[in-house]
Amino acid sequence: MSDAHKVTVVPEAVIAGLLSEEEAFEAVEATFGAMARGAAYNFPVIREAIGHADALYGFKSGFDRESLAMGLKSGGYWPGNEARGLTNHQSTVILFDADTGRVKALVGGNLLTALRTAAASAVSIRHLARPDARVLGMIGAGHQSTFQMRAALKQRDFEKVVGWNYHPEMLVRLETLAGELGLPFEAVSLEEMGAQADVIVSITSSFAPSMMADWVRPGTHLACMGTDTKGKQEVEAALLARATVFTDEITQSVSIGEAQHAVAAGLIAEGDIVEIGAVINGAHPGRSTADEITLFDGTGVGLQDLAVAAKVVEVAVARGGATELAF
Amino acid sequence: MSDAHKVTVVPEAVIAGLLSEEEAFEAVEATFGAMARGAAYNFPVIREAIGHADALYGFKSGFDRESLAMGLKSGGYWPGNEARGLTNHQSTVILFDADTGRVKALVGGNLLTALRTAAASAVSIRHLARPDARVLGMIGAGHQSTFQMRAALKQRDFEKVVGWNYHPEMLVRLETLAGELGLPFEAVSLEEMGAQADVIVSITSSFAPSMMADWVRPGTHLACMGTDTKGKQEVEAALLARATVFTDEITQSVSIGEAQHAVAAGLIAEGDIVEIGAVINGAHPGRSTADEITLFDGTGVGLQDLAVAAKVVEVAVARGGATELAF
Repeated sequence: MSDAHKVTVVPEAVIAGLLSEEEAFEAVEATFGAMARGAAYNFPVIREAIGHADALYGFKSGFDRESLAMGLKSGGYWPGNEARGLTNHQSTVILFDADTGRVKALVGGNLLTALRTAAASAVSIRHLARPDARVLGMIGAGHQSTFQMRAALKQRDFEKVVGWNYHPEMLVRLETLAGELGLPFEAVSLEEMGAQADVIVSITSSFAPSMMADWVRPGTHLACMGTDTKGKQEVEAALLARATVFTDEITQSVSIGEAQHAVAAGLIAEGDIVEIGAVINGAHPGRSTADEITLFDGTGVGLQDLAVAAKVVEVAVARGGATELAF
Repeated sequence: MSDAHKVTVVPEAVIAGLLSEEEAFEAVEATFGAMARGAAYNFPVIREAIGHADALYGFKSGFDRESLAMGLKSGGYWPGNEARGLTNHQSTVILFDADTGRVKALVGGNLLTALRTAAASAVSIRHLARPDARVLGMIGAGHQSTFQMRAALKQRDFEKVVGWNYHPEMLVRLETLAGELGLPFEAVSLEEMGAQADVIVSITSSFAPSMMADWVRPGTHLACMGTDTKGKQEVEAALLARATVFTDEITQSVSIGEAQHAVAAGLIAEGDIVEIGAVINGAHPGRSTADEITLFDGTGVGLQDLAVAAKVVEVAVARGGATELAF
């Protein structure tokens, strides 16, 4: 038998020009919807400290029966990379044909990871923030923060950005982007951010809460995007008890997401957490009052990676950027 | 930062001419040795019935700190493929750079799966069969049986092959190969095989035992290569109690391998099973008497796939057959 076919290769370097934020948004929103309909699911996550180069290596994977996206993102964290001029977080997405099991595409996953994470918080803002939100708060000014800010700003008519970072000198990154987008930027304390912001996006690698429950005003929407490991935490657990909590995947939310602490402390139960896909699908109303605090716990699932990678392959084949090889 | 590098693509079609049985043997033997030294390990296996095309899809993965082979084999079983002229079992191996986490190679895995499985039983024959073994018994005449037979015949001065298959008309496949290799072939009953054979290789997808304990002569070596799932079984559980049992990975042997039944029945304990790598490394003597029955439970681990794929990439780059792409 001949299993010969084509495999599409989309290198990391070409992706920046290929996938728009809107396309990433639509792909992630669609797969969250499919998850909540039971038509898409993530497989168990593999994450291994391999005992070499201090690296963490593993896979996030899944299958979406509606889009037929199937495969995995593989990679991890190599702390020694930066010293050799490479990104510490390395990711590659491999897509398979759900009808035959043959490999379909090999796609650079570094930029896609930032885009799909930003798309997830943007989806939560679109569906959960107050329509009249005007001030965006940014906690964290690392590599992913500009992707987050850019995607968030498209969701409402924001008039101002306030930002906080553990190392304040890094806030220039957010200030510069705000300037480019014609918005005023103010570096603030976390307490001041709580008093000013209508929407707060946190994207840190912190192991202790930054934003306290009492600092957040009624009506605020928070997207907590940094907590993806046991022990990490961005906001005080009591804030989740005050808020209606939404997430990408409940299993991850209660085990490695922001909700892990509130659930462990008995402040909320797994059953209190709503899949964002249910809101997308209209099965859950989302925000019900202007005073409600909504909190999206973005843990990051393999299906997001597959969704944006499938889109980028489609675009690369149509517009150029992909190499198709006999395989 | 620029994470640009080269990725090596080795398509399925070129592999047949690239990897010799000897090279597959050496790669698999080395990684089994590394496993028993604690220098290589397999990550948890992902295996999902995806609810589409009746397919089973998943990953076998691992890391070998000695060879630095790291990555996964992904694919599965698509029962509808044959009707469209494709192989039902589809596999692709993806290798990653253990020093940086960047993807290194994409390698067709269909032929490699047959070669690495045949290499494993050949390794067991080399290390465990009696030196004077003369008759090889083959249970099963499916796609992988010829790979098994070819690799087995290289390990001893075999003078004859006896074979059995549930569908006897398929035995022509084994008879033809024996003829090509200048050896007589005889189709026999399983009982007759037990009476004649010095080494028995079973490679079936059976869910009930074919070879009974009483039919096997003292001094026989068996390589049970077909059982890789809960419920599958090739030999009577009582045979494992009569034999010294060796395996590639003990965790798999007792859960999804041939030993699952004997362990569940209390006939042997997990602690009775020896890693074949311990024999390769000289930490276990292997066969101790001419009358001992030795049984290798070959369950199939991701490290075997990585080992042969890494070798094929090396050979393809050196001899041609690989495409190197900027990624």
